[in-house]
Amino acid sequence: MKKSGKVKLGLIGLGTVGTGVVKVLKDFDNIEIVKIAVKNINKKRDIENLDTSLLTTDPFEIVNNPDVDIVVEVIGGIEPAFDLLKTAVQNKKHIVTANKELLAKKGQELFELANKNNVTILYEAAIAGGIPIIMPIKTTLAGNKINKIEAILNGTTNYILTKMEKEGVSYEEVLAEAQKLGYAETDPTGDVEGYDSAYKIATLATIALNQRVDINKIYREGITKISAKDMQFAKELGYKIKLIALARLTEDNKVDVRVHPMLVPIKDCLASISGVTNSVVLEGFPVGRVMFAGPGAGEFPTASSVLGDILAIAGSLGSDNMLPFMRCNHEINALQVDIKDTVNKYYISVTAANTPGVIGTIGEICGRHNISLASVLQKGIDRENTAEIVVITEESKENDINAAIAEFNDNKNIIKINSLIRVM
Amino acid sequence: MKKSGKVKLGLIGLGTVGTGVVKVLKDFDNIEIVKIAVKNINKKRDIENLDTSLLTTDPFEIVNNPDVDIVVEVIGGIEPAFDLLKTAVQNKKHIVTANKELLAKKGQELFELANKNNVTILYEAAIAGGIPIIMPIKTTLAGNKINKIEAILNGTTNYILTKMEKEGVSYEEVLAEAQKLGYAETDPTGDVEGYDSAYKIATLATIALNQRVDINKIYREGITKISAKDMQFAKELGYKIKLIALARLTEDNKVDVRVHPMLVPIKDCLASISGVTNSVVLEGFPVGRVMFAGPGAGEFPTASSVLGDILAIAGSLGSDNMLPFMRCNHEINALQVDIKDTVNKYYISVTAANTPGVIGTIGEICGRHNISLASVLQKGIDRENTAEIVVITEESKENDINAAIAEFNDNKNIIKINSLIRVM
Repeated sequence: MKKSGKVKLGLIGLGTVGTGVVKVLKDFDNIEIVKIAVKNINKKRDIENLDTSLLTTDPFEIVNNPDVDIVVEVIGGIEPAFDLLKTAVQNKKHIVTANKELLAKKGQELFELANKNNVTILYEAAIAGGIPIIMPIKTTLAGNKINKIEAILNGTTNYILTKMEKEGVSYEEVLAEAQKLGYAETDPTGDVEGYDSAYKIATLATIALNQRVDINKIYREGITKISAKDMQFAKELGYKIKLIALARLTEDNKVDVRVHPMLVPIKDCLASISGVTNSVVLEGFPVGRVMFAGPGAGEFPTASSVLGDILAIAGSLGSDNMLPFMRCNHEINALQVDIKDTVNKYYISVTAANTPGVIGTIGEICGRHNISLASVLQKGIDRENTAEIVVITEESKENDINAAIAEFNDNKNIIKINSLIRVM
Repeated sequence: MKKSGKVKLGLIGLGTVGTGVVKVLKDFDNIEIVKIAVKNINKKRDIENLDTSLLTTDPFEIVNNPDVDIVVEVIGGIEPAFDLLKTAVQNKKHIVTANKELLAKKGQELFELANKNNVTILYEAAIAGGIPIIMPIKTTLAGNKINKIEAILNGTTNYILTKMEKEGVSYEEVLAEAQKLGYAETDPTGDVEGYDSAYKIATLATIALNQRVDINKIYREGITKISAKDMQFAKELGYKIKLIALARLTEDNKVDVRVHPMLVPIKDCLASISGVTNSVVLEGFPVGRVMFAGPGAGEFPTASSVLGDILAIAGSLGSDNMLPFMRCNHEINALQVDIKDTVNKYYISVTAANTPGVIGTIGEICGRHNISLASVLQKGIDRENTAEIVVITEESKENDINAAIAEFNDNKNIIKINSLIRVM
C-alpha cells in the first residue's frame, strides 16, 4: 500500500461499468477518485451524491494528471483509448482496463511500453466479466503448463442459444426479443459474429499458453446460421449447441485458437452453462481440469473485477518489487494453426431426395474422404418428398470435410447442405 | 524474487502430495529443495533420480535450517505439524501447507505468529485441492462482501454419493468398493462423517466472510445414514443428494456454518458435480454468483496449488512489501448460529401404517408446528401393509421440525422415521 495518503484514481468512462466502479468504490476509504472523463457532462447519472466537479470531457486531464496513480479505462474501442493509455503509461501510471478489443489488437504494444516504464496493466474485467480467471492463471496456476482452454465468453450469444434450445424458436426471433430486452445491441455483429469472443480468447490464450496470439489469425464463425432444427437434432443426439472459444497447444507446440459454434455433449460442464453466464475450462499439468463460471457482464460483476485489480495495484504501490502477476511479458509469438489444418468431429445436416440409398451415398462420399460416421439420423419425409439427414462424424480433417461437402454439393440426390457444425 | 541465488525449500512429508511437489518442482530452476523430512528413509519412492542425501527423519533439521526460505508442510494432522510450523515461523520462514486440520484448529494462532514475525502462510492446497479458491478470494474478489458459500469439499463422499445415485446401491456397498479402489480409507470416518469438509469450510469461511470461524461450533453430519431409497426418492422429486459445506452471513451479521447432506435441485450447478470433483460456489456483492470446480485431491492437482503458493512467496522474497494476499488477519471472531436456530427446507421419509388418513396425520402434525408441505410422495405398500411416505417442507425452523419429528415418533401410525435431510 502507498506509504502515505490515499491511492488516487482517474476514471475514463462513466457508462455501465464506470458507474458500477464509482458505486463500489464508495466503501473504500483509502481510494479516491480524483477525476472522471465523460462524453457528456450534463447527462443524468444513476449515482447518488456524485460530485460533478470531478467530471471532465477531456480524458487527457486524467492521463496527464500528476496526482493520478492508477488510470481506470472503461470506454472500450481502440481510439482514443489506445492513445490515452499509452500516454498514461509514459506518465508512469498503472492501468486497469476492461477493454478486450484494445488488449486483443494493441495488447503487446501496451505491455511492452508498461514493462519499459515499470508500471502494470491489469484487465481481469476484460475477460469473462466477474469471473476471476486472469489472476488465478497468473498466481495459483502459475506453475502449470496449460494446454487447453474451452470457454463460453459471450453472454449475449449464450443467452440466444439457450433461448433457442429451450423454446424451439428461431435465431431471428430470439435476437429480436433480446434486442428489445437490452441483452443484445441494435447492431449485434460484435456478439453474434463472434468478434467479442475472439478478442477475449486472444488475450486469455496469450496469458494461459504463454505465447502471444495474433487476433487476425483466429478463425471466427458466429451463431447466425444455427437453426431451430439444428438445436432439435443436437438435442436428440445428446448435445447442446454453444458458441465456444477454444485454444489448444498442439503436440508440436503450435497454438490452435478459434471461435465457432460447437455441439457440446450434454454431460460436459459447458453444456450446463445457460443464459448470460460465462465459463472457462482450463486443462493443464499438474492441475488437470478446472472450471470457472459466473456472470460475464453487467455493472456490478464487471466492477468487481475492476475493483480487484485496483486493490492489487493499490496494495503494491510504493513497493520496490514488481510482482510476477503484475508483469505482462510474452516474448514468443505463437505459431497459429490454420483452421484448414485442424481435426474435428463434425455435425452435418443435409436435405436429400427421398431416394433409396441416399444415406449410402453420403456414407460412400465420406468414406472416400477418410471420414467415418459416428451417428446418422434420418428425419421425416416432407411434402416435397425430401428427407433431412444428420450425421456426426468421427475425428476428421477439416480439409477432408470440405472436400466431402464439395461432393455433396455436386450430388443430384443431395439437395441442400443445411449446416456444418464442429463437435466437441 | 529473491535478489540473488535460488529460493530454498524444506519439504516436510513425502507422501502422495509431497511426491507430487518434488516431481513438479523439477522444472523450476530457480527453486531448490534443500531438505526433505520423511518417516522412513529407506522406503522406495516413486521419484526418478531422487537425491537421497536430501532425506532426513528429523523435521526440525528443516525448520531450524538457516538456509531454508520456505517450509512446505504436507504431513497433515496436528502434531508434530503445529510444533514444527510454529518453530519455522519463529525462525522467520514462510510456510506453504496443505494441512486443513491444522488450519481449522490452530490457524488463528499460527497466523498471529506469522504476522508478528512478518512471514506469510499460504494454504491453497488445503481447500479444494487443485481449484484456485483462496487466492481469488484474496485478490480478484478482494473488494467483495461475500455472504454465502455452498461447496462440495470432499471427493470421497461425493464419489460414494455419485455411485449410489447412478447404480442404486447402498452406502455400505459403495464404501467397500471405494476402499478396495483406494478412494476411501480403511477408517473412513474423517471423510464420511464430514470432519474433512468441516475443516475446509472453517478456513474457507474465515477467509471469505472475513471473520474467524470456530471449528468446534460447526454443525456436522455425515453421509452414513443416506439410503439407496433416499437417493431414489430424491431423484423422483428432482434432486440429487450431496454432502454440502455451507457458510452464510445472516442479516444480523452472524455466521451460519455447517456440513451436512442436502437435497440439491437437479438444475443447481452443484448437482452436476460428480465423482471426486470438488466445487465452490460463492455469492457476494458486487460479483454475484461465481463457481469454481476441479479436482479436489490427488498427487498432481494438490501439487499444482502448493506450487502456486511457493511461486507467490518466491516472487515476493526480498521485497520490502507485505502484499494484501499474504496477510492472514482475522481479528473478529464470528458469532456462529446454532443449527437449532436455522431455517431450512426438509426432506422427511417415514414408514407408516397403511391406514386411511395417515398423510392427513402427518400434515396435521406439521401444520401445528408451523411447517407447510411443498410435496408429498407415497410409495407402494409392502408385505407388512406399511407405506413409505416422503414429504418436502417449505422453509421451516429446525426447532419446529424437531418438535414435529418427536410427535411422529409418538404417533402409533408412524412406524419409523427413516430420514431427515435438509433441502437446498
